[in-house]
Amino acid sequence: MTSPGELAFEPLTADEFAPFGDVIEARDSSAYFVNNGQAQRFHDLAKIDVAAGDGYPLINIFRGAPTHFPLTLNKIERHPLGSQAFIPLGNYQFLIVVAGTTSNDLPGPLRIFLSNGHQGVNYRPGVWHHPLIVLNHTTEFLVIDRGGTGANCDVAELSNRIVIESPEILNLSS
Amino acid sequence: MTSPGELAFEPLTADEFAPFGDVIEARDSSAYFVNNGQAQRFHDLAKIDVAAGDGYPLINIFRGAPTHFPLTLNKIERHPLGSQAFIPLGNYQFLIVVAGTTSNDLPGPLRIFLSNGHQGVNYRPGVWHHPLIVLNHTTEFLVIDRGGTGANCDVAELSNRIVIESPEILNLSS
Repeated sequence: MTSPGELAFEPLTADEFAPFGDVIEARDSSAYFVNNGQAQRFHDLAKIDVAAGDGYPLINIFRGAPTHFPLTLNKIERHPLGSQAFIPLGNYQFLIVVAGTTSNDLPGPLRIFLSNGHQGVNYRPGVWHHPLIVLNHTTEFLVIDRGGTGANCDVAELSNRIVIESPEILNLSS
Repeated sequence: MTSPGELAFEPLTADEFAPFGDVIEARDSSAYFVNNGQAQRFHDLAKIDVAAGDGYPLINIFRGAPTHFPLTLNKIERHPLGSQAFIPLGNYQFLIVVAGTTSNDLPGPLRIFLSNGHQGVNYRPGVWHHPLIVLNHTTEFLVIDRGGTGANCDVAELSNRIVIESPEILNLSS
């Protein structure tokens, strides 16, 4: 998998993803035992922020088909009124494409993260992101996002189009 | 796996589970395509009901160890202030034990449901339930429940104890 210029695929870590939202994973720092020691609870892994307007949280499943490569990234979107969390239902790697916001309220340079297959993400409200890029296998995600009225999807064209040539990224599997 | 008296293990279906909450699964009736047809969204599969008091929704992971059988069910609990959803992160069957509430505000007769491995559940606030019964494999669940203050766990002893002898239920896998 190649990308032009300086753009690199980054492993998904909480620190590097912090400008965009939360990484949802079983972190020992957040864990304690419940049910007489029969289970561990990894507590409070992401901030659900969907109350703007008349918003309320939804639980959904997304079923994503494998991506056809080469893939041209030409648009990006954001949801100003609500966070949106995606957690893979099983061990499936996938790519997350995000961008900061410029002083002109447009998407800044892209960053591309690779989930290790057990990690989900939660975009904060208003964070520019591409639809998740599913790799070789049809992948289901649990999705927690916002229900309610209001204009909750902005779309921007990308002036510098990025082409992802092939899913060789899978060689980076942990 | 055996159980005394008339208690039978029931396949988990939305209709049969309706008195207790939601079954979270990819149902065609709730589906539409998104992302230019690249993904299906199974929309609004469970009601998150956690706003009582100062409540707010949490995203957590539970990691449950395999259950030691025979298992005696001797206690059951409920969370009066919030719903609680469990979705397996992968294809893992598990048992769900619930009960209605009697006119004395105590748990009624138990019902035991078997998830097909792709199904999650969402208990409504105040529904009596046993901790999930994980079967042969350590199983992670995404859990969406309530954060906030207030007394949110009642525990009741079961007057008629139920013993689940062994996990032969796995033979019922769909």
